[in-house]
Amino acid sequence: MMFKLKGFVLPRTAGVLKDRYDVIIVGAGAAGLSAALYAARYGLDALVVSKTLGGTISIAPLVDDYLGIPDTPGSELADKFIKHVRKYNVPIIVDVVVDVYKSPQDQTLWCVKLLNQARDICAYAIILAVGSERRKLGVPGEEELIGRGVSYCATCDGPFFRDKVVAVVGGGNSALISALYLSKLASKVYLIHRRESFRAFPIYVEAAKSNPKIEILTNTVVKEILGKDRVEGLRLVNTLTGEEKIISVDGVFIEIGSNPPAEFFKKIGIEVDEEGRAKVNIDMSTNLPGIFVAGDAAGGPFKYKFDQIITAAAEGAIAADAAAKYIIQLKSKQQPS
Amino acid sequence: MMFKLKGFVLPRTAGVLKDRYDVIIVGAGAAGLSAALYAARYGLDALVVSKTLGGTISIAPLVDDYLGIPDTPGSELADKFIKHVRKYNVPIIVDVVVDVYKSPQDQTLWCVKLLNQARDICAYAIILAVGSERRKLGVPGEEELIGRGVSYCATCDGPFFRDKVVAVVGGGNSALISALYLSKLASKVYLIHRRESFRAFPIYVEAAKSNPKIEILTNTVVKEILGKDRVEGLRLVNTLTGEEKIISVDGVFIEIGSNPPAEFFKKIGIEVDEEGRAKVNIDMSTNLPGIFVAGDAAGGPFKYKFDQIITAAAEGAIAADAAAKYIIQLKSKQQPS
Repeated sequence: MMFKLKGFVLPRTAGVLKDRYDVIIVGAGAAGLSAALYAARYGLDALVVSKTLGGTISIAPLVDDYLGIPDTPGSELADKFIKHVRKYNVPIIVDVVVDVYKSPQDQTLWCVKLLNQARDICAYAIILAVGSERRKLGVPGEEELIGRGVSYCATCDGPFFRDKVVAVVGGGNSALISALYLSKLASKVYLIHRRESFRAFPIYVEAAKSNPKIEILTNTVVKEILGKDRVEGLRLVNTLTGEEKIISVDGVFIEIGSNPPAEFFKKIGIEVDEEGRAKVNIDMSTNLPGIFVAGDAAGGPFKYKFDQIITAAAEGAIAADAAAKYIIQLKSKQQPS
Repeated sequence: MMFKLKGFVLPRTAGVLKDRYDVIIVGAGAAGLSAALYAARYGLDALVVSKTLGGTISIAPLVDDYLGIPDTPGSELADKFIKHVRKYNVPIIVDVVVDVYKSPQDQTLWCVKLLNQARDICAYAIILAVGSERRKLGVPGEEELIGRGVSYCATCDGPFFRDKVVAVVGGGNSALISALYLSKLASKVYLIHRRESFRAFPIYVEAAKSNPKIEILTNTVVKEILGKDRVEGLRLVNTLTGEEKIISVDGVFIEIGSNPPAEFFKKIGIEVDEEGRAKVNIDMSTNLPGIFVAGDAAGGPFKYKFDQIITAAAEGAIAADAAAKYIIQLKSKQQPS
């Protein structure tokens, strides 16, 4: 879903793009835009390239967890972010990065190949803030009711379901933790898992089992999300007996993981973790000097995986700071002293 | 400096305070307030205690690096943060924490002793978001001209000095990096260091030496910051020759480190790093289960020390998430299963 953007003008011709920037930021969600803001404030010549504007924020119906900007539709929040960056005259272009490679002419440069540009564009540093797509169930009613009862983030949307009946789908830690969180807000929580046993830590499973508000349905899959304008219920099937039943719910939280762009990272040569996220150091640098990853696509043992707007924005700022230092060092090595 | 707060009411009597909360957050800067927002959204019973409201944000004349809220006086930004938290009815009290200790009655509880409360208050988890004071030069003119040319953060305030003459005081990495950053914005940068050689990495020192905009003054101390309404100059003394001179500058960046509350941490039993910051894990937990540290007072090898509003807010959110998980596990252990 692409959000409508007020006051934003695409560069009219490829001619406005230069061949060379200090830093190219891929992605225009919270991480990419915060990186762009910091890069611009450091006086770095920055370019933002993104498939869509605003990232996953844009599809959130209402955001209330970004400190200082309460109760704001996601598209409006994304608009605020983009306006802030535009103030610094950072060019933002909508395009798809098809490849990232080291310049054969100059080993200090990384280049990106864009789908809609004849010439490749190079920079000393690249910040990949490309996000990670939440995994979907792929059942009827799901796409249609996103933001109207279908959610992929209990932390973000839980507070809208105070005293309502909700379901959580999944069997890992994030599903169990979501069910436990929601049990403090909702009147009842169904925890729906397709298998008999859970992948989640036993301590979370025990806590869910002993929680009077949580009803666990194992060996159960969601066949359809029901509802016209909002989620009203779920059609479930028991995988052992084949028995079908319908339960009434006001919301369903799908917590079955995400799909970071692991193949894209591997093609570039970036090491990924077991989830397929890029392994980053505490400064968001990767195993490839000059390549940084920030936001939901970043992972590895030094990253607390929380995937919030505020954490993505912080990681973008850190990546820009680290890229600025990297560029200082790179230029200092190039100069005869 | 305490900032004026609109629409904020202190609890009138100590009677409104309970003996027990899920989590007590100490500090009401970006880290503490973001922690409070997330804790409240998780349905945790939270209390915020702070010496002042807004933390170091409040003294910033203008903040333009918090994505989505451009060009805002620090006190106004702090006000936005507090209003956002107040929406969730989290009590915020102004008081001084004089001690943090484990409850002798119940080993799952941590308690805080407050200066102005007869009774101590306990919780399962404590988030210490107590900040870190920037070290001051302690010279005439410094206090008077804070925010009017005297700054402790080049990253934050640098963009206000485009094409101006500035000075950086210090000899560590942050001073050198600040001088290099500022050289991209300012017309001239004096780098003033009291010793002959720099503690900073040689690569930064070399970069500064070969930068035509940077003039390095070693063996030099600032005796006075001059100016009536704004910084106009510095009175310098050469420590070897005793020679005095005055230079004209529009701004001075004091980058001589910060003073985290190391003694406070040590007294509680929290391990600190070489700077005196609390050593935190990637989830902001410390060596003491149930005690979390977020924001400028957090340190150790897993923390990228950047000390920005956006990074502090992200750390507060992470600490609240980790505290929520910690409390789930704690309660699950207490329950007979």
